[in-house]
Amino acid sequence: MSDSHHGPSRRQALIGSAVVGWGAAAALGIDRVATARETPTATGSRTVPFHGRHQTGVTVPPQAHAAHVALDLLPETDLTGIRRMMRLLSDDAARLTQGRPALGDTERELAHTPSALTITFGFGRELVTRAGGPVPDWLSPLPAFEIDRLTEAWSGGDLLLLVAADDPVAVAHAVRMLSKDARQFASVRWVQHGFRNARGSTAPGTTMRNLFGQVDGTVNPAPGTAEFDQLVWHSGGWLDGGTSVVIRRIAMDLDGWDRVARVDREGAVGRRLDNGAPITGTREHDDPDFDAVDERGFPVIAEYAHIRRARSPNVAERFLRRGYNYDDPPPAGQLSDSGLIFVAMQADPVRQFVPVQRRLDDLDLLNEWTTPVGSAVFAIPPGCADGGYIGETLLG
Amino acid sequence: MSDSHHGPSRRQALIGSAVVGWGAAAALGIDRVATARETPTATGSRTVPFHGRHQTGVTVPPQAHAAHVALDLLPETDLTGIRRMMRLLSDDAARLTQGRPALGDTERELAHTPSALTITFGFGRELVTRAGGPVPDWLSPLPAFEIDRLTEAWSGGDLLLLVAADDPVAVAHAVRMLSKDARQFASVRWVQHGFRNARGSTAPGTTMRNLFGQVDGTVNPAPGTAEFDQLVWHSGGWLDGGTSVVIRRIAMDLDGWDRVARVDREGAVGRRLDNGAPITGTREHDDPDFDAVDERGFPVIAEYAHIRRARSPNVAERFLRRGYNYDDPPPAGQLSDSGLIFVAMQADPVRQFVPVQRRLDDLDLLNEWTTPVGSAVFAIPPGCADGGYIGETLLG
Ligand code: HEM
Ligand code: HEM
Repeated sequence: MSDSHHGPSRRQALIGSAVVGWGAAAALGIDRVATARETPTATGSRTVPFHGRHQTGVTVPPQAHAAHVALDLLPETDLTGIRRMMRLLSDDAARLTQGRPALGDTERELAHTPSALTITFGFGRELVTRAGGPVPDWLSPLPAFEIDRLTEAWSGGDLLLLVAADDPVAVAHAVRMLSKDARQFASVRWVQHGFRNARGSTAPGTTMRNLFGQVDGTVNPAPGTAEFDQLVWHSGGWLDGGTSVVIRRIAMDLDGWDRVARVDREGAVGRRLDNGAPITGTREHDDPDFDAVDERGFPVIAEYAHIRRARSPNVAERFLRRGYNYDDPPPAGQLSDSGLIFVAMQADPVRQFVPVQRRLDDLDLLNEWTTPVGSAVFAIPPGCADGGYIGETLLG
Repeated sequence: MSDSHHGPSRRQALIGSAVVGWGAAAALGIDRVATARETPTATGSRTVPFHGRHQTGVTVPPQAHAAHVALDLLPETDLTGIRRMMRLLSDDAARLTQGRPALGDTERELAHTPSALTITFGFGRELVTRAGGPVPDWLSPLPAFEIDRLTEAWSGGDLLLLVAADDPVAVAHAVRMLSKDARQFASVRWVQHGFRNARGSTAPGTTMRNLFGQVDGTVNPAPGTAEFDQLVWHSGGWLDGGTSVVIRRIAMDLDGWDRVARVDREGAVGRRLDNGAPITGTREHDDPDFDAVDERGFPVIAEYAHIRRARSPNVAERFLRRGYNYDDPPPAGQLSDSGLIFVAMQADPVRQFVPVQRRLDDLDLLNEWTTPVGSAVFAIPPGCADGGYIGETLLG
């Protein structure tokens, strides 16, 4: 495993501030990053700016609820149609995120508690092609992986709406408003509702827990750092200031996981369940010691451990994770239909996400209890200024 | 319509404090009612007592998230099995609601943010029958209504778990833990996830809004009042201190609703959309004036208006509403699958809920856009003391 990790000093230098999370960014008082404006009276009125160089849903601390909605363009929707649609949807988003009803909003009172609402748009290959391109070479379905058990129902899509807020009513209303305005151009393909701990139920900056009970999201580039900018933002062309998103729906076998002893569950990831610390350390943000061996000479963090496999020796292969839990009603005879809406954002998914997913496909004990059942890739265009619209650099 | 309402003075005397909501109860400083204990550091640690004369999920101010889970007993589950199951589940609930892991909790860290978690149990007819009864005569499927389009998939059930908290992770974990421990006795029949505005996104005591954008829940008996006690708690027998719950899954046709002019939408209910005030008044809690007529002599609150039809002249026909919004991924070709998980609690559903539902079945303009698609009735046993278990008055 000598190629999969490095000694502490080299590692620290390589990773630097890229491995601190939103909590750390907040603690550092980083202000280049979109954060929510809060009035003292009600957190429901918190707003996140919509306009700017980047779409703000990429950098804002993850809200409690997120709807991931993929649409298919109708056959007749051409460049002109896509442009009209994106003007309309951008206008909706500019208003709704600021706590104002959309134009023609028939449930306008539901717009009054935006609760840090962000609306992030993504373009699938078909949309960019119909718009006349250029199509990034990575904007295609991912290569097949051994572990995949994908279904069409959870995969693909031409347009992504990523709608997130701390209030589920705000999310429901925005999704409804946007899909209504998109209706003449596109139809809903899939909707994936995800959640994290409610705002206020954990201290700000606390890393989320997934439904395996794990602290999930510890090692993540921090918005506002140079590493984040390098890893996440695309440079040049119509995507300058944009990024990409990979959305993998990953079913988690909670029944199987429950049968595994706690020590083995910790070994499977290489981190403790109680506080997320590496099993070679004591606190969540301690650096894992991948060189440590036990009394028999075996690595403490095993060869198959998820964090060893997921940490590429190549720092350029890192990316941002913004995943959400899902917990849907179980099919007949089952107890749970739960998992992770795994969301990775990076400048280039083929150079960043795919090599890591390949390593995990080859070896990762977590694969025993996790199964990718959906997969989609979208380009996330840059933000826009007031008066502009998302996608204008491609469609304008 | 002279039988459907009364002049203000008679009405006030009849309704009295029964028509103030949780907000008003809070404002009055009512302390007989279960409320959450809050530490200054994190609202995630808020707990609601589990033990007591009544199940506390009936009276606590409604939390942001609720999972309504119905189970079917396995064929072999007899009285002894039911008793074992209820001991186990009561023990789980006693711990989880206090922020402690259940016995054998494999994801025990997920228990640490109870966020005002309550777990309320309900018994269906089959369970009470197998336990040897006596079976309340109202513990059966409701009579059929003209408006019903029920599906089995959303109806019936032998055991209800009503799991509510301000944090969706707390709900997911509790549902999982309870269904695991119930697994040897019962299988999951249906799960309905519902939500309201997130805690903190609106001022405490604010009435929820449903996905039609309406203020929903204004006229509701307030826990802690004599009217509430009379309307909600059952007296005598094993259900002494318990109640009943009717759960109706009601699909709301948001597309149809959107096509209706705002004034007509307000007329359909008899209340304003902006603040929920009756159309004869200005503030939410103003008394509707059912006698008011317009310049042509027509009633301002129309004959078909929901609040006129829903307000029975017989005060004994009132009940507690604790509904939740649902917003599920839409079926192919649709924009939304949204509605209300309508939850009514009362001492006797046949004497209280059914007459009101019958009146609405006969005439209620809201029926144009609402369709009951699921229906279930459960007996809610009284609470239990520390060391006891829910259902002991029947099963013990
Ligand atoms: C349901 C599936 C998955 C679960 C339950 C899971 C869980 C975890 C956990 C508990 C950690 C350690 C804490 C942290 O740093 O966040 C982690 C780290 C990580 N995971 Fe996953 N993961 C899953 C899937 C994936 C996938 C599909 C990828 C990418 C292809 C991935 C990439 C990573 C990376 C890059 C790290 C950080 C590694 C490091 O540098 O320390 N994970 N994951
Ligand atoms: C999706 C279906 C429904 C919707 C959207 C709805 C909506 C509303 C609204 C907006 C109000 C006025 C505010 C308030 O006092 O809460 C109301 C009142 C009420 N509703 Fe409904 N409702 C629905 C179904 C039902 C059903 C099925 C029942 C009982 C069978 C019911 C019984 C009541 C009662 C008793 C009131 C209070 C009336 C009064 O005394 O002023 N509702 N509803």
